[in-house]
Amino acid sequence: LVNPGDNIAKIIVDVVLKNGLEIKDGDILVVAHKIFSKIENRIVKIENVQPSERAKIFSKKTGKSPKFVEIILRETKRIIKANKEIFLVEDNRGLICINAGIDKSNIEGVNNYILLPENPDKSAEKLRFQIKEITGRTIGVIICDTYSRPFRRGQVNFAIGFSGLNAFRDYRGKKDLFEHTLRVKNVAIIDEISAASELLMGQGKEGTPVVLLRGLKQILENTKKANISDILISGKEDLFRNIL
Amino acid sequence: LVNPGDNIAKIIVDVVLKNGLEIKDGDILVVAHKIFSKIENRIVKIENVQPSERAKIFSKKTGKSPKFVEIILRETKRIIKANKEIFLVEDNRGLICINAGIDKSNIEGVNNYILLPENPDKSAEKLRFQIKEITGRTIGVIICDTYSRPFRRGQVNFAIGFSGLNAFRDYRGKKDLFEHTLRVKNVAIIDEISAASELLMGQGKEGTPVVLLRGLKQILENTKKANISDILISGKEDLFRNIL
Repeated sequence: LVNPGDNIAKIIVDVVLKNGLEIKDGDILVVAHKIFSKIENRIVKIENVQPSERAKIFSKKTGKSPKFVEIILRETKRIIKANKEIFLVEDNRGLICINAGIDKSNIEGVNNYILLPENPDKSAEKLRFQIKEITGRTIGVIICDTYSRPFRRGQVNFAIGFSGLNAFRDYRGKKDLFEHTLRVKNVAIIDEISAASELLMGQGKEGTPVVLLRGLKQILENTKKANISDILISGKEDLFRNIL
Repeated sequence: LVNPGDNIAKIIVDVVLKNGLEIKDGDILVVAHKIFSKIENRIVKIENVQPSERAKIFSKKTGKSPKFVEIILRETKRIIKANKEIFLVEDNRGLICINAGIDKSNIEGVNNYILLPENPDKSAEKLRFQIKEITGRTIGVIICDTYSRPFRRGQVNFAIGFSGLNAFRDYRGKKDLFEHTLRVKNVAIIDEISAASELLMGQGKEGTPVVLLRGLKQILENTKKANISDILISGKEDLFRNIL
């Protein structure tokens, strides 16, 4: 359990050592976003929130409390859909997520809600630099959250910010086993790595918010400045628009 | 490279041994669907296809060749969207996928297209039983494919069929770290396992269509008859309907 202002890099390095491991060059650390939300003090006490008129309107539309709607709206750039079943927004970071990614699981106090980190890419970068400083190792960092998705039941972990690796392994223009050129394949490895890590993290009492991955060096070529906006798709570009 | 009629279970067990490993109870095998499509002879020579009148209509709408549209329609239960950018269908198995999951990467011959296995759950179950027969081990099997998804760029691997495990790790009704009851969390672990495996499989010349996972025993409780329909969501239940 972490607290506002904690040095998460030091905590992680200590825990890695305590587990008889060490951080090596090319490792990837995947961290549940709540760790950063907590150390960055992104916690809102709902009883102190004053709902705006706009929040009251969307409270009626969604059936959610005006105070909860208010904190969602403060994190929101654009409302995509608001009804009793779903309150889907594009948040201030450009992430398309239900309730602007705000919830209250694994946070102390029944009236406390936890917001996404203000700038997950920056949080990831900071952790990466701190790990470098402490250990001398060059690693990649991914911050993840749990997402519902269209067409398929249940949730999976996806990335909301990262540093030190590319978002994709891009096969476009490369050849397959039979020398055909691949035209579409552009695999979102940061999402796949996030999903893989969730298998060890869990969502309940597991208390495992950090997963260390090793052996992916060959797929990580960080040739350019990459950030989460690489993976966020605008309405105009989204093949699936006007479908559901 | 496999051929129609090959005994995939025997091939996998041999390769596992050749790699100095052995299959153990509780292991999970993730297999790229193309392996099954090939051994089940789900390959269509496009030049032999006679397009129907309906295929010609949707050929105009989508800009795809009438013959390619014809093989898509034969695999399709319901057309969701057909335009120049996307041909999205609910396929005969209930999967929502672009071009009914048909493509031609990693298949020999420029005019050959590869269909999804007829019944991926059944293919997975058969492999599981065969592995049991050969090795005496009780494992889980997942068959995966690469999916585009709304809201996010790029593709990730998801499951299209499985046997011997549950689709979900369901936290609903369970407690979090602070004894709050979780209300929504129901993690699609078969999709997360599929995504994890893709990191090793790759999409190009890697030639690694099978991944063996170990250490997930604690999250696998196969208490009921599970199949891919557990994860497929009907339009009515899909929170995201009427959104994009």
